[in-house]
Amino acid sequence: MTPPQNPLLNDRDVEFLLYEVLDATRLCELPYFADHARDTFDLYLQSCRRFAREVLFPTYRPVDEAPPRFEGGAITVHPAVRRVFRPMVELGVLTAARPAAVGGQQLPLVVATLAGAYLQAANLSACGYLSLTAGAAHLIETFGDDALRSAFMTRMYAGEWTGTMALTEPQAGSSLADVQASAVKTDAGHYLVRGSKIFISGGDHDLTENIVHLTLARIEGAPRGIKGVSLFAVPKRRPEGGQLVPNDVEVAGMIHKLGWRGLPSLSLSFGEKGDCHGYLVGSPHQGVACMFQMMNEARILVGANAVATASAAYHEALGYALVRPQGRPLGARDPGAPQVPIIEHADVRRMLLRQKAIVEGGLALVSTTALYADLAAHAADAAERERAQRLLDLLTPIAKTFPAEKGFESNALALQVHGGYGYSSEYLPEAWLRDQKLNSIHEGTTGIQGLDLLGRKVVAGNGAALIALGGEIRLTIARAQRAGVEPAWGERLGAALALLGEVTVQLAEAGMRGDTERMLRHSADYMELVSVVVVAWQWLAMAAAAREGLARGAAPADFYEGKLCAAQYWLSTELPRVEVLAALCRSGEDSYARMQPGWF
Amino acid sequence: MTPPQNPLLNDRDVEFLLYEVLDATRLCELPYFADHARDTFDLYLQSCRRFAREVLFPTYRPVDEAPPRFEGGAITVHPAVRRVFRPMVELGVLTAARPAAVGGQQLPLVVATLAGAYLQAANLSACGYLSLTAGAAHLIETFGDDALRSAFMTRMYAGEWTGTMALTEPQAGSSLADVQASAVKTDAGHYLVRGSKIFISGGDHDLTENIVHLTLARIEGAPRGIKGVSLFAVPKRRPEGGQLVPNDVEVAGMIHKLGWRGLPSLSLSFGEKGDCHGYLVGSPHQGVACMFQMMNEARILVGANAVATASAAYHEALGYALVRPQGRPLGARDPGAPQVPIIEHADVRRMLLRQKAIVEGGLALVSTTALYADLAAHAADAAERERAQRLLDLLTPIAKTFPAEKGFESNALALQVHGGYGYSSEYLPEAWLRDQKLNSIHEGTTGIQGLDLLGRKVVAGNGAALIALGGEIRLTIARAQRAGVEPAWGERLGAALALLGEVTVQLAEAGMRGDTERMLRHSADYMELVSVVVVAWQWLAMAAAAREGLARGAAPADFYEGKLCAAQYWLSTELPRVEVLAALCRSGEDSYARMQPGWF
Repeated sequence: MTPPQNPLLNDRDVEFLLYEVLDATRLCELPYFADHARDTFDLYLQSCRRFAREVLFPTYRPVDEAPPRFEGGAITVHPAVRRVFRPMVELGVLTAARPAAVGGQQLPLVVATLAGAYLQAANLSACGYLSLTAGAAHLIETFGDDALRSAFMTRMYAGEWTGTMALTEPQAGSSLADVQASAVKTDAGHYLVRGSKIFISGGDHDLTENIVHLTLARIEGAPRGIKGVSLFAVPKRRPEGGQLVPNDVEVAGMIHKLGWRGLPSLSLSFGEKGDCHGYLVGSPHQGVACMFQMMNEARILVGANAVATASAAYHEALGYALVRPQGRPLGARDPGAPQVPIIEHADVRRMLLRQKAIVEGGLALVSTTALYADLAAHAADAAERERAQRLLDLLTPIAKTFPAEKGFESNALALQVHGGYGYSSEYLPEAWLRDQKLNSIHEGTTGIQGLDLLGRKVVAGNGAALIALGGEIRLTIARAQRAGVEPAWGERLGAALALLGEVTVQLAEAGMRGDTERMLRHSADYMELVSVVVVAWQWLAMAAAAREGLARGAAPADFYEGKLCAAQYWLSTELPRVEVLAALCRSGEDSYARMQPGWF
Repeated sequence: MTPPQNPLLNDRDVEFLLYEVLDATRLCELPYFADHARDTFDLYLQSCRRFAREVLFPTYRPVDEAPPRFEGGAITVHPAVRRVFRPMVELGVLTAARPAAVGGQQLPLVVATLAGAYLQAANLSACGYLSLTAGAAHLIETFGDDALRSAFMTRMYAGEWTGTMALTEPQAGSSLADVQASAVKTDAGHYLVRGSKIFISGGDHDLTENIVHLTLARIEGAPRGIKGVSLFAVPKRRPEGGQLVPNDVEVAGMIHKLGWRGLPSLSLSFGEKGDCHGYLVGSPHQGVACMFQMMNEARILVGANAVATASAAYHEALGYALVRPQGRPLGARDPGAPQVPIIEHADVRRMLLRQKAIVEGGLALVSTTALYADLAAHAADAAERERAQRLLDLLTPIAKTFPAEKGFESNALALQVHGGYGYSSEYLPEAWLRDQKLNSIHEGTTGIQGLDLLGRKVVAGNGAALIALGGEIRLTIARAQRAGVEPAWGERLGAALALLGEVTVQLAEAGMRGDTERMLRHSADYMELVSVVVVAWQWLAMAAAAREGLARGAAPADFYEGKLCAAQYWLSTELPRVEVLAALCRSGEDSYARMQPGWF
């Protein structure tokens, strides 16, 4: 038997999230979204999912198998990537959530994120060109002057040019304070940029005639450290006398990668001939602060990428488990009886249910985070915008990290469900596993997200964000209670929330005493703790919506039963881990603090 | 700065395990090992480790990059594999632990396992040809008649021919009861074999003139199911009239794999022309029972492979973290201060310490299991052999699964420590991560090991194995107490052991009531529970030996301090997880039992 066609994401789940869990149509009451309604949301979702399934997904394996070529100083992409690039631009993904004033559709980010997830699940690296372009153009939209907006942003939003983020340098890695690329102001107003960047995704290609690198560099004489770094738009070719001329940006090398094989990761040299023009974006020395807009957007996007990658693999494993016959039920005594589909084996169902819990819990988390982004930007009153911004800030590192880390586990389980076939390249799970591994690294490693969460986000404004989160979680507990969800689940989540509060206060006190090391030592465990709680919150919300759906006789009942079962799984098998994690954070267990380099 | 040369395994750790933790020289008091002493152990270890580092490791990347070629119905291996094959035979790895009577060195398996781990860490797939040959030859040694032993075994132990295990069929996978390959007895005494096998590692190559496939097939008229499966030696070329003639074994296809790129995984067709001779090994219909000898050896070997693969990556990450400068300590205020090596960051040390705990804990577990194998075969009295056999049986699925599952996590951490470079193929961690993923699948998936552990091993002989394990653990707790190890660690392990006993009794009772589903539902959690406890036992033993070493002033003190720190890590951060795991097993949480296929 052939498995069913992989849906990439479950349409019913997307509909459920948007309209039953999150009630996203309430956004249409806000002026920014006033032209929208459920039918325009659905129209966009439908066009993206159809394109993802019919056009994009069939390109995935060929693109994975033949990475871009680097010849004669230039990159040639896979022909399939060239074939899908323009249609994706025409779907509107570059500007779905941007205002009409810059050519956008003013869709809520939560809708754009869910629609985009279909595309990412279909071919992650092909989407990379567009998401980097959108983020880079948005940076210019926010911080660029009118000249830059009309010269660069417009063409980028139109998909005529693409964009990149050029932060990382070989000697600095995650440490942006150590950026050494330099910029010298000229009398003409532009800067001359010089330096080396590494891991620049989409840093060269033959899809469009030009590429704009949003580049961090240090203006001559700038202060040392993070406060001396500025942001520049540095095009591959610069407009000069009505045409595009080479701007002294060279590809120094292409990095061979484990996954994301359709999107080249490059080393770039800027200004080797002293003729690389850069255009300041935002104020001098504010580059990292500006770049954080793109980085924060990119972090939510990485979460979506990770969920999408895990989702495609989960559905592939599910389809396989439904049709692959092997073995018989426990205790079956007749060796002549036909074999059963492997989904009949409890351990296979465990692996599938865990994937479902991670994928759908992760998708709910990413969607919720995107919804706060919509409210932070467009809610009616300032207090509501501020509250949403706090929740957005708090959830961003979690929405990036949980899908990246647990998504990798989920992808490994999808491979495992396929048995020996899963290890073979004739099946897709091994490729998605390779893709997934990048998500814990790029846009801030998991370690950096943990420090950001505990060292900045939860302590900002005297813990205001965590207080706001507590309020949201308590609303969900009340909703679940009203809906008739198993009361123990809400009680468990309430207890976990209280425990999280205690741990946070204790760690913040260590920080206030000046013992930063003690405060942040278990930031990885703290991230895990918060993630488990936040995803339990999402599962309780889904359980409530499922009970509501069943109560009003909505269909299909099987879908809601599955949601309740997965909620039970997370709240009964994963949430109890918070005790151990909280104890670690509180005890300050010091093995790796004490461990000396010479002891390894 | 260049990182130090990767040692693959830490020599001091190997020495520590053999002579300080396990006291392996006591084996030399047994008649079988009477010709050995520490210096002969060390000689063998030294020759393997030197070859691994100087010759084998440099072949790893080239072999990974250029898999075998399948052309004209035959496989051509990488030239580097051809270059290292004969020298590995000459090291004695095929017969290190076999008796002198068959040309072996009669070394303890624990010594052979540790020495072999260096080779596996250096080039896993190159070792595959030899380990499969050794296991296959051992099967013939045990169950074959004199004719087979002299015709096949001798040449295989000499490395003139290689061997494979040919169990899996496309329609049966893990379900050996569904083997369909057939065997018809001829008047000449041999059988005519016909059937298809898949995932046959080393199933063809150009290293030797012949290959002997230890093949499961069903004799005409045999009972259905597992009790109708027999074992045959089926050579690629059969001896006939003083020469080797083709034996109607064809390569039907080569499987492209995520890792293990130096060892082809093949589909084989037996007897398409009706001329494939097979020679019965052991009694008719006893094939699976015979094959279990090879499978059990192979399971411990998979554990060793997994530890070796995680060890190589751990040492690579450690070397990188020692020399890669990036960022500054928490709270450092001077952006002009030089960057520090990343090992100075607590979260990097956490990732390294976790790898150390998994790698060295796993190596101790695999070594301990091998030592029980030595005692089970060669201890002086029958009661001691029986006790050791029980412990061996119990520990085998754990020694296979823990390194495979946690090794994969460890390999992912090694990649993560390398940041963006880790995702690039110019560094080695991504390749080891790919290799590692097979270990949770081949020789019985993790799911199957869990069922084996809980459904067979712990309940056999009324729980005798677990009682024996409890005795061993209590001896270690007492040793740790005497040595002055932190008393809380031993107490925690004792409590975990008691909890494990309670859980096991409860689950066994469900089984005795006939509720097999309830008993085995949480077999994956049970496996995790037992693994955490067993590895905690290993870490307590290492902590005891480290304290003893420090007390007698042995060097280097740093090594012992590192052992104590890693023991603290495991006993303080990992062991507390047993509460959650035990609660799951006891509560019988039923989400994936209830989950219906249509609910996903």
